[in-house]
Amino acid sequence: MADAITARAKNYSEWYLDIIKAAGLAQNAEGVKGCMVIKPTGYALWEKMQRGLDGMFKATGHVNAYFPLFIPKGYFQKEEQMAEGFAKECAVVTHYRLRSVDGKIEVDPTAKLEEELIVRPTSETIIWRTYKDWIQSYRDLPLLINQWANVVRWEMRTRLFLRTAEFLWQEGHTAHATQKEAEAETLQMVRVYQKFAEDYMAMPVLVGPKTEGQRFPGAVETLCIEAMMQDGKALQAGTSHFLGQNFAKAFDVTFKNEQNKEEFAWATSWGVSTRLIGGLIMTHSDDNGLVVPPRLAPLHVAICPLGRNDAERGPSIAAAEKLAAELRALPRDDFFGYEPISVKIDTMFDKQPGFRYAEYEVRGVPVRVEIGPKDIEKAACAVARRDTPGKEGKQFGVPLATAAEHIAKLLRDIQQALFDRAKKYRDLRTVTVNTIDEFRDLFPVRTDDNEELPVEALKFVYAHWDGTRETEDRVQKEFKATIRCLPFDGPTEPGTCIFSGKPSARRVVFARAY
Amino acid sequence: MADAITARAKNYSEWYLDIIKAAGLAQNAEGVKGCMVIKPTGYALWEKMQRGLDGMFKATGHVNAYFPLFIPKGYFQKEEQMAEGFAKECAVVTHYRLRSVDGKIEVDPTAKLEEELIVRPTSETIIWRTYKDWIQSYRDLPLLINQWANVVRWEMRTRLFLRTAEFLWQEGHTAHATQKEAEAETLQMVRVYQKFAEDYMAMPVLVGPKTEGQRFPGAVETLCIEAMMQDGKALQAGTSHFLGQNFAKAFDVTFKNEQNKEEFAWATSWGVSTRLIGGLIMTHSDDNGLVVPPRLAPLHVAICPLGRNDAERGPSIAAAEKLAAELRALPRDDFFGYEPISVKIDTMFDKQPGFRYAEYEVRGVPVRVEIGPKDIEKAACAVARRDTPGKEGKQFGVPLATAAEHIAKLLRDIQQALFDRAKKYRDLRTVTVNTIDEFRDLFPVRTDDNEELPVEALKFVYAHWDGTRETEDRVQKEFKATIRCLPFDGPTEPGTCIFSGKPSARRVVFARAY
Repeated sequence: MADAITARAKNYSEWYLDIIKAAGLAQNAEGVKGCMVIKPTGYALWEKMQRGLDGMFKATGHVNAYFPLFIPKGYFQKEEQMAEGFAKECAVVTHYRLRSVDGKIEVDPTAKLEEELIVRPTSETIIWRTYKDWIQSYRDLPLLINQWANVVRWEMRTRLFLRTAEFLWQEGHTAHATQKEAEAETLQMVRVYQKFAEDYMAMPVLVGPKTEGQRFPGAVETLCIEAMMQDGKALQAGTSHFLGQNFAKAFDVTFKNEQNKEEFAWATSWGVSTRLIGGLIMTHSDDNGLVVPPRLAPLHVAICPLGRNDAERGPSIAAAEKLAAELRALPRDDFFGYEPISVKIDTMFDKQPGFRYAEYEVRGVPVRVEIGPKDIEKAACAVARRDTPGKEGKQFGVPLATAAEHIAKLLRDIQQALFDRAKKYRDLRTVTVNTIDEFRDLFPVRTDDNEELPVEALKFVYAHWDGTRETEDRVQKEFKATIRCLPFDGPTEPGTCIFSGKPSARRVVFARAY
Repeated sequence: MADAITARAKNYSEWYLDIIKAAGLAQNAEGVKGCMVIKPTGYALWEKMQRGLDGMFKATGHVNAYFPLFIPKGYFQKEEQMAEGFAKECAVVTHYRLRSVDGKIEVDPTAKLEEELIVRPTSETIIWRTYKDWIQSYRDLPLLINQWANVVRWEMRTRLFLRTAEFLWQEGHTAHATQKEAEAETLQMVRVYQKFAEDYMAMPVLVGPKTEGQRFPGAVETLCIEAMMQDGKALQAGTSHFLGQNFAKAFDVTFKNEQNKEEFAWATSWGVSTRLIGGLIMTHSDDNGLVVPPRLAPLHVAICPLGRNDAERGPSIAAAEKLAAELRALPRDDFFGYEPISVKIDTMFDKQPGFRYAEYEVRGVPVRVEIGPKDIEKAACAVARRDTPGKEGKQFGVPLATAAEHIAKLLRDIQQALFDRAKKYRDLRTVTVNTIDEFRDLFPVRTDDNEELPVEALKFVYAHWDGTRETEDRVQKEFKATIRCLPFDGPTEPGTCIFSGKPSARRVVFARAY
């Protein structure tokens, strides 16, 4: 089964798609270009992500609500940048009825909508139209609302999870009485995303503002988290936007302040999507298959009882069942989302043990336990960790009496180890350059678009930049590299722009990006 | 605040909408006809419902997945009844781009889809098209999949929660190797719905098959749960369909059975929607506002510390905070979905206590606690239950030392009391008739469609029916009453149809329905 996975070093893009296929995460939909089917294992990852994020949103005072799928075309006209940015490639509903003519179903031309409806690409417009009714006084503020929803952007070049016509996401939309509060919210939420990425996904991220050229349409400032994939490319994994009063003005959302004066409300919006699943895959997985951090793993432990015949298998199965029961009965806690540890007992005795192990390896189950006749003799078992395949990650002779606690602790260790490894990897592939020649070497441009760079070629590059859109655009055109962000925790000393020779306020991070 | 609610006896329909408005559950969307905005409190109810149902689906071996929002028009053509039933009033996507002409946004006529896409009204077609790729052998079966999603049916006459153009729901779609298994699944899932309705929603339901005339398009058999609303009308609250091999044949889904013979797979589908929120409101709420069973309540306990000045308020607040902490720290259990009991401390001291209490009454918070200076003297508090408004439901002198356990138990008692009350109400309004004259009296037909019947007029009526579609259609036309189901637990003795005089196999339940 693992044979079906292309090695990263051979072809990284194929490796990514192979992992998705082998682990059963998703597939392209039949008959609906650019849409995907999220298969049960992929969806289970998304559910875990939702659960974790939703808890963090609620802990910071947010509530969920639901707004319509459809947005009247005219709403996009009200916010200029929104119209520019989103009202282009989108799904347009023009009719509301089909009819049957000579046994063939066709669109009923008499059922044409007066105003076309757009399937939401993002919901700022319809939500701010609704907020107009909800906000009258400063007492109605802040409004801290999140929505879990599907959205549609008619993408031409799609890739499972990373870019699809329809995807699932959450979008927070908050309204505030003051600029300061809205800015604090924008910062708070990008920090929530950072915490989720690092603590749940074990995926280290850079955090900071985007440049003007990379901002969300309608935003005054966009903060983001950026992660490094194993091919050295950046993945924008979440964004939090300070929208100023743009949407309040577009939809006339005013409130009476404490001095009884009418003011426009201040807005933020923030979102992460099923794209995170792509990021998760490309951060941790290896040539053997998917690797999932325990906090997001749908299945934590696979126990494989072993034995050549029923006499040998009986005691192995009994020990497996006892261990499974003990694991499931451990006190529920925040680390596992107050759910029991998830355990499966594998009884595919008609297959070779190696085949059975490979199954859980491909699917990224964090811990595998083997219990055979020799283990039973010693009242012990063997415990293998997915993040360290092979003998190195396998511990023999773990006493059955204490195996449950051992595994519960191991799951926490694996979570930390994955984060540490990913961070080390990113840091090793992050460099600082001081000349355009060094920069050019780091972002070689191939003439053939389809040719793959060696997987170790790309890096995150700190370089001085003069702060202008012009230089940014030039770099993007010439090197296909973009400024990912101005990291809050990055170096801040001034210098000279390596592209224009003009003064630079600070170094920024360049990378190729998904 | 409670003044804004029309009394049930005066106008039941207005009462329903008043409750939704006063409790802040939902509103009609601006600019998108027939769609609704589910407000935070309404959405919190849906989240609780989702959590409860999802746990029951998983406990019965189901997993979640996600399929595309869009369905190619041609897919509806493949299953005849599906085309009849669903490919009519629906949202049709015909274009994939807008363009800006002289500053006005319009549909780009050059971006027309080759084949129109339908926004899913239900997903049997696209899911069975996908199952074709997933099912080859009996080893791939059963396939037990559920989807949480939004769906769209272009309804002309809408009512919040009960009938809206877009709504949220879950749809289970399972594939089986044998007819027997699929039938067992159909039955299992309607029993899951019954359990959810009764144990979580405290809403008693009749369970049984629909007649042919009321079946789902494409189904061989439809099982349902039917609840009685407080106006005596029936609400179909959930359905579970045995689909035979209809979809397998339409999408050519075959598998090799154990004898290596190709067979078509057997299908079921089952769903409940945000309609359940309408059912919840109309089962328990009263003229003072919403009433929510504790298992679904977003907020379980509102504590109102009292006092005329800071000196009096200080100890009240301290006692409230201690009690809140104790309630939140109670061991998590299945009754509350392994979440802490949800508690709010109300400090609106600038309002009259009566105003503060009314707020929680309108919103249906199951338990309210009052702690004032006189309570503090006695180290006690007053505990009021929402399901029994007024003095009758208020217990004074509950010792603070044991208040947390007292309230935790009270919440369970309220859950049971709500179910018992609703069941008693339904049983009192269920009658058996033996003549068409009696039947006519029970289903008076008004000439003015908008005239409201007295809220006590309608009932569930057991009567003999000859089993024909003809009689069923006649009754529907003449009395606007439909056969809700053939209850599994209803009387089964044979008799004579009261409409046609022909033999009847058993009594069935007639009612007006939402």
